[in-house]
Formats: sequence, structure tokens, C-alpha cells
Amino acid sequence: MRERHLERIERATRSAEGAGLAAVLVPPSPDLAYLAGYDPMPLERPTMLLLRPGTAPALVVPALEHPLAAASPVGGSIDLVAWRDGDDPYAVISTRLPSEGHVAVGDHMWASHVLELQRRAPGAAFSSAAPVLGALRAVKDVEEVGALRRAGQAADATFEAIVAQRFAGRTERSIAAEIAELLVHHGHTDVDFTIVASGPHGASPHHEPGDRVIEAGDAIVLDFGGRLDGYCSDTSRTVVVGREPPGFTAVYDLVARAQEAAVAAVRPGVSATSIDRVARGVIDAEGYADHFVHRTGHGIGLEVHEPPWIVEGNDMELVPGMAFSVEPGVYLEGRFGVRIEDIVVVTDTGVERLNLSTREPLIVD
Amino acid sequence: MRERHLERIERATRSAEGAGLAAVLVPPSPDLAYLAGYDPMPLERPTMLLLRPGTAPALVVPALEHPLAAASPVGGSIDLVAWRDGDDPYAVISTRLPSEGHVAVGDHMWASHVLELQRRAPGAAFSSAAPVLGALRAVKDVEEVGALRRAGQAADATFEAIVAQRFAGRTERSIAAEIAELLVHHGHTDVDFTIVASGPHGASPHHEPGDRVIEAGDAIVLDFGGRLDGYCSDTSRTVVVGREPPGFTAVYDLVARAQEAAVAAVRPGVSATSIDRVARGVIDAEGYADHFVHRTGHGIGLEVHEPPWIVEGNDMELVPGMAFSVEPGVYLEGRFGVRIEDIVVVTDTGVERLNLSTREPLIVD
Repeated sequence: MRERHLERIERATRSAEGAGLAAVLVPPSPDLAYLAGYDPMPLERPTMLLLRPGTAPALVVPALEHPLAAASPVGGSIDLVAWRDGDDPYAVISTRLPSEGHVAVGDHMWASHVLELQRRAPGAAFSSAAPVLGALRAVKDVEEVGALRRAGQAADATFEAIVAQRFAGRTERSIAAEIAELLVHHGHTDVDFTIVASGPHGASPHHEPGDRVIEAGDAIVLDFGGRLDGYCSDTSRTVVVGREPPGFTAVYDLVARAQEAAVAAVRPGVSATSIDRVARGVIDAEGYADHFVHRTGHGIGLEVHEPPWIVEGNDMELVPGMAFSVEPGVYLEGRFGVRIEDIVVVTDTGVERLNLSTREPLIVD
Repeated sequence: MRERHLERIERATRSAEGAGLAAVLVPPSPDLAYLAGYDPMPLERPTMLLLRPGTAPALVVPALEHPLAAASPVGGSIDLVAWRDGDDPYAVISTRLPSEGHVAVGDHMWASHVLELQRRAPGAAFSSAAPVLGALRAVKDVEEVGALRRAGQAADATFEAIVAQRFAGRTERSIAAEIAELLVHHGHTDVDFTIVASGPHGASPHHEPGDRVIEAGDAIVLDFGGRLDGYCSDTSRTVVVGREPPGFTAVYDLVARAQEAAVAAVRPGVSATSIDRVARGVIDAEGYADHFVHRTGHGIGLEVHEPPWIVEGNDMELVPGMAFSVEPGVYLEGRFGVRIEDIVVVTDTGVERLNLSTREPLIVD
């Protein structure tokens, strides 16, 4: 544990140096969990990992969390700086910042902290640390891919269990609650989201499951995920209750073909944007361009959404170890939605799907 | 619902105007839930409520969340502006910002959004929206106090149930899991934290419950909370297992006296800092100043930590409707900790405790 995190801190610091950064500030976030193995709640009291090329790293913490930080994987190996309520924590941090140069901050840092640090270091130019930290985190090592694979298998087992249940006559909320229980039953420690979007609700990609009672002839978008061993799952399938609604089969086949084609295009050396174009091309060709209202996918790891973004305009080149979703969808207002989503990982020669539950159209009771 | 939120948006906009702000940008956060009744997950895709004195409010949302935003309490009453993946959302937002003047942003806005907005509006001066939004939210109306009271009662019922259980021979983690179940059983929809800090672990105020097996002679700090009807609970009690550890009684009495004195000092017109000084004065007088390593309290509402901060240097004057914790503690490394915490609300003439479980020292099995 300790060596793994110190090595990541070392790599991030070298990468920051290469990017011409004088310092990187990392607040409580998946970035901090990745680098230091330390994952406190983000709060109004600033906690910051400070990386400075040429200087030893430091972790600034509120005094009341000093014991937690000291017990973290890197607690005995890096400089811990505790501040007490009533002290000025921004002074503690900014005296350790260079008076000028480029300072990068983690993407999840709260505005309250960003603005106060800018005020205290007026000579520094602040930017996002994503080019350094996002790029590091986007490429998973063997252990991380293993955790993502286990999370994917647990999500698949959840899907297989839920489609064996009766849907008709139950509310979306009831199905969502059962999916949450199944995710935990199959090994997830946390449930992050459980979208159950039935009938016309399927046209809302991030629908919140509610009191609508599911009935025969509904298409239902199921999209759920959580965390297992710290790594996220995220998979979507669209099923129908009893019988397909009018026009469903053609749209389902279209989305399935788009997903298949986009996954097949994944290999080292191609760009993220090209994967989005493959999926979008299939859907646009059938005249549904206006109904595919989101990007094709997002990276996944310690966070359910993280780089690489599989979106038009992202020229990032795929390399082995990158893990992301491929999830085209078509949304028809007032009627239904269809989305099919797998997590995939780029291998040395192509792609591995981490979700393997059937993509054939399923009819549930 | 709708009127309540539109009225809050109106009050925030007037307050922003009074503060000389040209615009206020509110990301997904308790601020947005408070103002608009809309509470999506904060994500890399920006969602922003834009308040501009003299202009109608607007809510900028990702297209795939447009249906959710439209269904929110204010969805039919304010201008919804949807952007699609591949569009430039920051352009969509910044074209609606003034080219100069003061722009305030919600404290929880992610750095990625803050920095990009600063880049797009280089003539604007960015600051925290806390002076406007924190001040509004700090003063609860009758319905909000009612929700906090119900959350407090449920937390008290949880405490009464847990201290009837056997502690000796069980792990901290097992007690923490039972507290979580009890909070839900007593009506909480979410559990936010369940600190069970036994024996020497009690000296770590934010201890994460682990595998330590509780034994006779341990003092145990219990500090837990969650949400009920959207509002937070947060209460701490310190109990002993079988018998007090050496020196416990004097420290417990000291903390109880400090808490009693600080609560008794709460009334309209006194400052937040003065409440901190009362608690700290009692503890300092007995020579334990170095062992009370945190502020006396924090506001509570939609968030477990929010203004007003009961801390040295905060001159904010208490007014009826403010709700906050009063939670002095003494932490003795290697031995034990003691913390006693109640949520209180400022009334027209003084104070009401929202936690009423006994503060007498309790011996558990």
C-alpha cells in the first residue's frame, strides 16, 4: 500500500514538473485517494496534499483529523502539517506555495478553497490539475483493472437477478431499491445510482426512479452502479415488459449496432473522439442524430465519471489500461428510451468488455 | 413548493444586488437544493443556476438532465437553458455573465468549473457566494426548524436504543453498523456518519470505526447523523463500558459544564465567537486548552456543516432561527476522548435544544 501510493505521488510530481507546474494542490477527492490512499470527506476545513517539484510533498490537515492522516498509507512517509480551528489554514498552505508560477488544483476542489488560495497567492496562475492527475488515473494498472472487472461481474450478476423478477405492477422505486440490494448482495460496498426509467420516462437519460407503476408494453432503461474494492461499476440495459412498444425493435437494434461498432473500434492508438464518431455515425445514418443527446462514454475507476471522455473533440489517444463506458442511447420523447452500456478496457491489442450480461433484447414479466 | 423556492431565489437575488454583485452562479449543491428545490449530482458536466439582479434567473443544464430540471419545483417558472455534450457549456454560461463586475460562485462549485469560468470572463472578479447564500440559509424558517427537530428526535431515539445494547466484546464497526440501521429505523433517509471511537481511539475526533474490540473500562465517543426530510441530524455522547477509565469523571464533568455554559449563552444578539469563548473558557480554566482541538460548533441544515461557524473570530451575530451544534470536547492521546454535542436553535428569547437525550454520564454493558 505505502509503496504504491508513494510511487504515484512521485509520478504525479514528475509529471507536474514536466508540465511546468510549480505546485499541485490536491483536496479530498478521488485524486487524493489515488495518490495518498487517504479519503476524508471534503469539508469547509481545508485538507490539501501539496506536491512541489524539487521539494518533499506535504499533507496539510485539520488538527482534529491529524490522527486519521497519520494512520493513512503515506502518513508515516510524508510531511504532515496540522492546523487548528481558529488558525488561518490558507496562510498555512500559501506560505508553502511559490510566489509565482503555475499552480494546479484538483478538479473537485471547492470554490471556497480555490478563491481563498488565489487571494493569498496573487502572483500565481491557477489551472486545473486534470492534465496531470486525470492523465495518470486514466491508465489503470493490473490491480485496478482487476477491481473494475470484479465490479463489472457483480453488476452483471445484479442484472441477471433483477430480470428474473416480476416488473409489471411494481413501481420504478421498488425495482430501484431491489437493484440497490442486489448490488450490495453481490459485493458492492456502495450504491451510487439506480436508474429505472420506464415507458416515457426512458426518454430522460438521468431519470430519478419514482412512483410510476410499470405495465406491460413498457420499455425500461436500467442503469446502475456502485463501488466494489473502491472501484466503480456502471452498466445499462434496456428490457421490455411483456411485449415491445411500437417501434421499439428497430431502435433497440440500432443502439445495439452502434454499441457493438463503437466497442469493436476500441484499440490502442485511436482517439477518444473517433469512438464517439463510430457510435454517432451508426445512429445518425438512421436519422436519429437528434435523439442521441449525450456523449458515447466516460472513463471509470475510483470515480464513476473520470477521464478519458469519449466525446466529440477529445483527441486523447487510447492506450492500454484505459477503462471507460460505451453507452449510446436513443431517446424518444413521450415514448421510450434505449441505452446499452458496457465498461471496456483497452488491451495491448484491442479491447476487453468488463460487462458480459446479454445484449440480446430481453422480455421480462 | 414552487412559491417557496421562487421566493428564496428572489430573496437571494435582492441580497446579491445589495452586496453589489453582478451575478451569482450556483452549482449542484445544498445551495441549489435550497434555492430551486433541484438537487442533481455534481458532475463534470456543468449545471448552474444564474441569478442576475435586474434580469430573470436562468438554469443552465446538460441536455440529458433537461427533463429532470423541467420537473423540478421551479422548472416551469424560470428560463431553462440546455446544452448538449460536444457543445461548449462554459460559452453558454459566460455569454450570460456580465463582462465585468463582481461574480459570486457557490462554495461547493468544483475547481474545474470555477477556473474555466474565470478564463471565459476575464473582466469579472470572482468571489464566494457565502456572504449571500450562507447568510440566507443560516436562518431557518419554521418548517426548517421543524425538520431539524424531527431529525434530532430520531437521533435521540437512536442513542437511547444503542445504549441499551451490549458494547463489550463487539467491534466499533459492528456498533457503527447498528447505529446506521437505527437511524434509518427511526426515520432517516440517509446516514452520513457513524463515529464509534473507543478507548484511545476517542482521542481522534473524526475517528473511522474499525476492528477494535470494545472492552470494559473503555470510554466511547458516539457521534452520528444523517438526513430526515432533507435536514441533518448530528449528536455526540460519550459513554463508558462497565467502569470509568482513570481520570474520566473529571474530564466528563468538565466537558459537560462547558457544553451547558455554551448552550446557556446562546440568545439573539450575541456573536458566534462569544459562544466559542464560553465553552473554551470553561475548558481552558482547568488547564485542558491544548486538548480541545476544534471549534465549538457549526451550523446545520441541508448540510451537516454550514454557517454559522461557532469559532474564534466569527463576529456574526446570532438571530432567531439559526441552528448549530454546540460540541466541546477534550482529547487525551493514548487514553480517551469526551465530546458532548447537541443541535440548538436560537429562539426569540434564547435557545432551544433539538437533542434531548441524557447528558448524564452513562455506563453501558
